[in-house]
Amino acid sequence: MNAHVHSGGDAPVPFDDRGLAYGDGLFETVLVRDGAPLLWEAHLARLQAGLERLGIPTPGREIFDALPAHGVGCGLMILKLLMTRGSGGRGYQLPENMQPRLRWRMTPFTPQADRWQTGVTVRSCHWRLPRQRALAGLKHLNRLDNVMARQEWTDPAIAEGLLCDTEGLLIEATAMNLAWFDREQRCWMTPRLHHCGVAGTLRQALLEAGVLTEIEASPEALANAEAGCVFNSVQGVWPIEQWVSEQQSDTPPLRRTWHLEEQPVREAVKRLQVPAHALLGYPVQ
Amino acid sequence: MNAHVHSGGDAPVPFDDRGLAYGDGLFETVLVRDGAPLLWEAHLARLQAGLERLGIPTPGREIFDALPAHGVGCGLMILKLLMTRGSGGRGYQLPENMQPRLRWRMTPFTPQADRWQTGVTVRSCHWRLPRQRALAGLKHLNRLDNVMARQEWTDPAIAEGLLCDTEGLLIEATAMNLAWFDREQRCWMTPRLHHCGVAGTLRQALLEAGVLTEIEASPEALANAEAGCVFNSVQGVWPIEQWVSEQQSDTPPLRRTWHLEEQPVREAVKRLQVPAHALLGYPVQ
Repeated sequence: MNAHVHSGGDAPVPFDDRGLAYGDGLFETVLVRDGAPLLWEAHLARLQAGLERLGIPTPGREIFDALPAHGVGCGLMILKLLMTRGSGGRGYQLPENMQPRLRWRMTPFTPQADRWQTGVTVRSCHWRLPRQRALAGLKHLNRLDNVMARQEWTDPAIAEGLLCDTEGLLIEATAMNLAWFDREQRCWMTPRLHHCGVAGTLRQALLEAGVLTEIEASPEALANAEAGCVFNSVQGVWPIEQWVSEQQSDTPPLRRTWHLEEQPVREAVKRLQVPAHALLGYPVQ
Repeated sequence: MNAHVHSGGDAPVPFDDRGLAYGDGLFETVLVRDGAPLLWEAHLARLQAGLERLGIPTPGREIFDALPAHGVGCGLMILKLLMTRGSGGRGYQLPENMQPRLRWRMTPFTPQADRWQTGVTVRSCHWRLPRQRALAGLKHLNRLDNVMARQEWTDPAIAEGLLCDTEGLLIEATAMNLAWFDREQRCWMTPRLHHCGVAGTLRQALLEAGVLTEIEASPEALANAEAGCVFNSVQGVWPIEQWVSEQQSDTPPLRRTWHLEEQPVREAVKRLQVPAHALLGYPVQ
């Protein structure tokens, strides 16, 4: 089904837009290098899968290919794409003539390049992700879980927070995916996202390239790993240098440290960072 | 904490509003009769509880009391109030100076008065509500579960869809709360909402009045009940005349019918409808 789409750059959206009213829509955040949106097919594929899952008419791809991300500017930009079901409907019921609404904005971007080498400190979030198979993997606009988890810390020295689902399985970080290098299997593992979580486009590309393997795992898998990383299609791959878990109030936080300068850790990180950064045009440190 | 609030009637919201981006906000739908918003304290209390839970600065109530719902117009209107965390922030991280954004719109309203007497047909939804204790009860803007459940049917003869959580407990209808009259306890029961669901203001008022009792229950509780109703602060109380559950494809749907003209059913419905409609100024049929 091809949709008639209201589109208007980053113009405001009306009060009755269902993206605003109910989070009834999807978004993508795309790294654009010298006018070329990267992992573009993966972004379009995830967006299209999401539109289909939500029952929002899918516009032809020419609408997206015509966005000004293409061939405009030099250097790095972020293209944020937002697509909602459009206006109206009586309550939750779908409007009779859905006219999806597309908005986008380009902003200049500088990655935190030092983190590629020095790594980052991450923490365990107390917040748990609820399980909803039918929406798992999508980058939809219902992101209160991420917002709430991100509120747990303000210390700028902590780069990310790791999230488990309500069953205690490891899922992702608040805005990045997660992977660890398994000592025995000698490969990079990433949590399966069939109950919850956002299936990042870099994660998808690395799965397809055979660099990553999906698995169900508890936090112990990361604790026992040779190396860990958080990553996405915008920031690239950040090795985890330190992982802090706050325990109950009367005990000191648990810390797991990876010495990134040690040979086995460095080798492991390279096995993920080299193919990932090749896709994004980032250097390997 | 008193907040500086951007407010602007039903003006559009900017691209970077976090209500649009993440569903980072709350809403209320208030019945206004002859210029007086009904169950106003309950709406404000729920909104305030939600703002506190989400960590959004709470404006003084004079902002809400000054809305044009008060003292304007005659007859019935709906005031839809929407409050977001406002603009900005890098990703999920909160903006440093949150300026919540308030929007509202008044629209004329006519309740479906025939349903108060003739009752309605409801169906069981296949969609399951995920459990998220920390957000349970709030009328936040992450409502994809309701949107998806409401897509399961288009037949206008079906007034509502009943929702269970992922553990199979009965929770609510897509836009209304649910109650049933227990034969043995001789009182109206409504699902406890500590895992998920929206705690409606009419439900809250009826709980406080001792008309409703909260309980954890599976769909059998409704199947065995003397009467069932769906209700909210806008439509009032609709007795359930018929409840349809679609089974797997090769079996006919299950139907449970309540004969609303029979004395015990009518008496039971009155015990809920009389106090509820007194709060809303609706007649009892």
